Amino acid sequence: MRSDDDVKNAPQGKDTATAYKLAAKQQEISVTEFFEKNKQILGFDSRSKSLLMGIKEAVDNSLDACEEAGFLPDVTVKVERLNDEDYRIYEEDNGPGIVHKMMPNVFGRLLYGSRFHALRQSRGQQGIGISATVMYGNITTGKPAHIRSKIEGQDEVAWQMDIVIDTKINRPIVSNDKAFVWDGKEHGTSVEYTTKGRYITGKQSIFEYLRDTAIVNPHARIEFHDPEGKKYVFERATEQMPPKSKEIKPHPEGMEIGDLLKYAQNTQQKTVKAFLKNDFSRVTDRIADEILEKASVDPSAKPEKVTREQCIAMIDAITKVKIMAPPTDCLSPIGDTLIKKGLMHILEGMRPDYYATPVTRPPKSVNGNPFVVEAGIVYGGEIPSDGQVTILRFANRVPLLYQQGACVITKAIADIDWRRYGLEQRGGKGIPFGPAIVLVHVASTKVPFTSEGKEAVASYPELQTEISQALKLCARNLKSHLNKMERKSKTHAKFEIVQDLLPDLAKKSAEMLGRPVPDLNRTITKIMNVVWVEPQSKKVDKTSRVITYNIYNYTNTERTFMLHMRLPKECVNLTLFSNPRFRDMNDEGKANWIVEGLAPSQSTQISFDLKGELSDTFDIDDVYISGINPVHVMGADSLPGDWGIKGLEITEADDNDLVDDEEEAAEVEDLGDE
Amino acid sequence: MRSDDDVKNAPQGKDTATAYKLAAKQQEISVTEFFEKNKQILGFDSRSKSLLMGIKEAVDNSLDACEEAGFLPDVTVKVERLNDEDYRIYEEDNGPGIVHKMMPNVFGRLLYGSRFHALRQSRGQQGIGISATVMYGNITTGKPAHIRSKIEGQDEVAWQMDIVIDTKINRPIVSNDKAFVWDGKEHGTSVEYTTKGRYITGKQSIFEYLRDTAIVNPHARIEFHDPEGKKYVFERATEQMPPKSKEIKPHPEGMEIGDLLKYAQNTQQKTVKAFLKNDFSRVTDRIADEILEKASVDPSAKPEKVTREQCIAMIDAITKVKIMAPPTDCLSPIGDTLIKKGLMHILEGMRPDYYATPVTRPPKSVNGNPFVVEAGIVYGGEIPSDGQVTILRFANRVPLLYQQGACVITKAIADIDWRRYGLEQRGGKGIPFGPAIVLVHVASTKVPFTSEGKEAVASYPELQTEISQALKLCARNLKSHLNKMERKSKTHAKFEIVQDLLPDLAKKSAEMLGRPVPDLNRTITKIMNVVWVEPQSKKVDKTSRVITYNIYNYTNTERTFMLHMRLPKECVNLTLFSNPRFRDMNDEGKANWIVEGLAPSQSTQISFDLKGELSDTFDIDDVYISGINPVHVMGADSLPGDWGIKGLEITEADDNDLVDDEEEAAEVEDLGDE
Repeated sequence: MRSDDDVKNAPQGKDTATAYKLAAKQQEISVTEFFEKNKQILGFDSRSKSLLMGIKEAVDNSLDACEEAGFLPDVTVKVERLNDEDYRIYEEDNGPGIVHKMMPNVFGRLLYGSRFHALRQSRGQQGIGISATVMYGNITTGKPAHIRSKIEGQDEVAWQMDIVIDTKINRPIVSNDKAFVWDGKEHGTSVEYTTKGRYITGKQSIFEYLRDTAIVNPHARIEFHDPEGKKYVFERATEQMPPKSKEIKPHPEGMEIGDLLKYAQNTQQKTVKAFLKNDFSRVTDRIADEILEKASVDPSAKPEKVTREQCIAMIDAITKVKIMAPPTDCLSPIGDTLIKKGLMHILEGMRPDYYATPVTRPPKSVNGNPFVVEAGIVYGGEIPSDGQVTILRFANRVPLLYQQGACVITKAIADIDWRRYGLEQRGGKGIPFGPAIVLVHVASTKVPFTSEGKEAVASYPELQTEISQALKLCARNLKSHLNKMERKSKTHAKFEIVQDLLPDLAKKSAEMLGRPVPDLNRTITKIMNVVWVEPQSKKVDKTSRVITYNIYNYTNTERTFMLHMRLPKECVNLTLFSNPRFRDMNDEGKANWIVEGLAPSQSTQISFDLKGELSDTFDIDDVYISGINPVHVMGADSLPGDWGIKGLEITEADDNDLVDDEEEAAEVEDLGDE
Repeated sequence: MRSDDDVKNAPQGKDTATAYKLAAKQQEISVTEFFEKNKQILGFDSRSKSLLMGIKEAVDNSLDACEEAGFLPDVTVKVERLNDEDYRIYEEDNGPGIVHKMMPNVFGRLLYGSRFHALRQSRGQQGIGISATVMYGNITTGKPAHIRSKIEGQDEVAWQMDIVIDTKINRPIVSNDKAFVWDGKEHGTSVEYTTKGRYITGKQSIFEYLRDTAIVNPHARIEFHDPEGKKYVFERATEQMPPKSKEIKPHPEGMEIGDLLKYAQNTQQKTVKAFLKNDFSRVTDRIADEILEKASVDPSAKPEKVTREQCIAMIDAITKVKIMAPPTDCLSPIGDTLIKKGLMHILEGMRPDYYATPVTRPPKSVNGNPFVVEAGIVYGGEIPSDGQVTILRFANRVPLLYQQGACVITKAIADIDWRRYGLEQRGGKGIPFGPAIVLVHVASTKVPFTSEGKEAVASYPELQTEISQALKLCARNLKSHLNKMERKSKTHAKFEIVQDLLPDLAKKSAEMLGRPVPDLNRTITKIMNVVWVEPQSKKVDKTSRVITYNIYNYTNTERTFMLHMRLPKECVNLTLFSNPRFRDMNDEGKANWIVEGLAPSQSTQISFDLKGELSDTFDIDDVYISGINPVHVMGADSLPGDWGIKGLEITEADDNDLVDDEEEAAEVEDLGDE
């Protein structure tokens, strides 16, 4: 296994010196040999993990291909146990198919793919995953992988072939390559392979991976047949395709000198100026001039003649010129509504108490790579409360099940003081404890994974800051809900006492004294001193609900105020617009209502329908109020400052009240700030 | 940047189908391009980490080379700040040097090296590290690396050259290649490069890496010049070279079918039987026959003609045949004494209370790869007590500073219930809290790192079990020490009361009653009822100590017992062997002493010298006793069952005592078991 050439070239009589002995052993290693020997780097370490990894690579590719072609993904996974540690895996999609000539390289050659140089969000980028799966199957069972594919178009025939990888030269060996008729299949690809593995259920299982995939890909239908022959289906939660991410050009920021030198040597442009202007994003005529002037480089110079020193000067100039951030249509975040929909769809069995409104942060960029962070928190119900919170990590819509401890997402979570948001945590550091599920999604043109196995995201400070921001916004929403629930239950208790006990007491006292029973209405009002907003939701059918807010004025003054809520705007209809108290709704679905002159001890109602597949993503408790001092409100939060809509101002009388109730008001304020 | 060939080959008129569009983008990626784009996988993510990584790769290579040649390593590292983020790094060793012709490939080509196929413990194996360092320097500063090397031998001239890596083809570009006279240098290599970086101090700093390297490489001298021009030297703690690890052949166990097929195709052997017998370790004539019979393969068949099916059958047969574990002289563990020496040498500034005796486990093997685990714990003194314990992770004598959360060592630590061993830990899980430093070293012919950056070890269950075992043994030693200290301080208090107060009381009472003062010797003995072993150590000079054990019999019977301790045997001398109470000492340095017929209220002494560089590794508190019920002993532990030497049996009278003091005895026993 040694390079004979090197041994022969060792000078005669010098073979005793260590340097010559070492020289004789020096040799090149093929990339396939390297990965074959270091399977754990690709994620193929334990047998159970290997089984999962293969399926993950196949499904990721299928989803990428379907989205590329604009098809709602239909993915099937079958796991069949052959014996002890041998499994047969079958995975099929309805993607655009793979051109016959390309099938061998796509499945049988490492570091070969279509997306490595493409700057846009996609699951696979390295051209390693599926070939590594085929290789692992080959190595562990000695059997080839069987690939079938049919491309779109009526006249296209389907092709099938067996593939083995020759690891010494990293090339596919193809056999049984033939055309066939794929009954009833319009287009798509299937891969079937045998592999050593261990099938597990529960944590880090195939089921868990597919379930989590369904959460962040609500537009996909995923069917899973387990080794017992049991079938699970994660149905599509929405027919809405995610917006297709666009490919962008590299952004000059964050480029290293070596990158620039290489781009310059490979460009089709004739001048350095044209090269800067046409091969990079956000470089205008003016910016190109500015860079070249600062770097003292002639704009009409040939790009391939640019020297190392000139590149150093240009990179230096780029840091000094203000360039717009890269375009962000290369990203395709899930969006807050669909994250919630996905979570509700999959987690309804756990009957959580609360889905905190998910947060999609505005895109940022680090080293010229745009990225976006999304977060969601689910709380209570049957989520176990005695352990650490469950963390669901996602990168470019792919669940990350391993290496939690190595991931920037975990680091961001552990660095937040969760005690401020109602979760238990020793010393305000580490993964918090409590009945919660925390979801984080990082989407980028280039997610910086810590290894080829794509199991954890590297700890870039800019990324951690954004994750932390998203989580805190989401957590604030949770905390505010927990506070509201606590206040509500306290007030409920007070109400019960006041409404049941007081009339009883009055009646008894009156009897004993031989006096008439007094009218208690005003007394009750005085004791309670709140405007009560009571939400109700009635399910009409699977995709239709009636929402009602009952509003009682238990204060001793007439009240005028506004109610605000953010609705899934695809689901609102005439019942909303025709409601006399309805005022307006903006593009984001933020709707405003007005209640005028509600007298003491009086009540009123706001009611409307929500229709459509997203109707259940609206949380009736997420209602805000303005025009009234929040200490006098029960059941609605004070309109937050960042809501983007100016509510009604608080009247003077109410402002004075605030001073009396300073302490309570301060507490309420605490929820809104930070 | 796309492969034009593929685009041209797309069929005419079909370019609208997604499959064809994708096909046009398919292309191979060079391994250098891959790593250039995924620098974080190689460990080059943040600027501060990148600066460290480069130095780490250079120093690892230097130590490997020195050990290969049998030279005590002398390594120098200089960090010079050029401006803002630009640094010049200089690293030099006294290794065997690199043959002139090989210099370009060693420093300028990824996946090129001498140790990839060698089955023996070494720091570098992948042939990636130092080339990645050169590449990162090239890319970030545009400047070549400057290499110098001189190989052993009087007539050898030194060579120097500048190297840049062409990442498109993964080949070195050499300039300024010339011979020179390296003044005063006998042999060795230096590498100098400029790189972007950020210099930090404290955690994960270059200083920390070099300090930790010194701990597990006590035979190395390491000199560090920081950017401020300050010089730090980690002097050699021992002149003793680690035993050289030997290269072994692959072991049949744990081989995959693909591995066997490949070995068979590349062998020089003429028959399958000779192939099995000569190309693998631990395969005898009989075992080769047995495997081939079970697999129904003709022993005289040509190896290169072996089919995939035959390989499957042979792999299956191998699991059914009993084969000896692989030889372990391919490993070079540090050893318990040198681990302790290394820790003491480096950590003495923290004045720890206790160095628990480090544990070197017997070698095991996983999938045919031998490995050995070592552990040590340092406790108390000025080690911060308010946070989590400090974890020092090492693999093949290299400190691992990053990715702690991803490492099997961390997992093993977090899965131990440390509350049993005297450390604080919530719910008996997670990293414990307290004033301790926990060291774990994993040595193997193939450490399964989670990525090319070699920052964390993958979670193989066999590995975790061994780490856990080593830590528990070490922790038991710590716990026993903590208990001993606690008991000692309690008894000390009792002693003070008895010896000071009692005579005073007796005197006062006698005065009051007008009686003579009674003799209290027997009373004190009765109250104390222990044999007291009091160790003392007197430093004579830097490498010499006098050890004395003062032994008092505060019980009311005559006592005969043995004392046992494990001494660094290089350090014992005539003072030990000429001591009349000395009995014998074995190869491990376990020494036995006898004290016969020590009367009540009497005392005696055992005293000897320790001389040599390891003399300070002996902990005077690590003394054991036999022939006496441990409840009657203070200052020495009962001889553990796994000590390997049979002590004196406990006399009958003492055994009866045991029943009276059942509870206390049970507590003592608790320390010895598990």
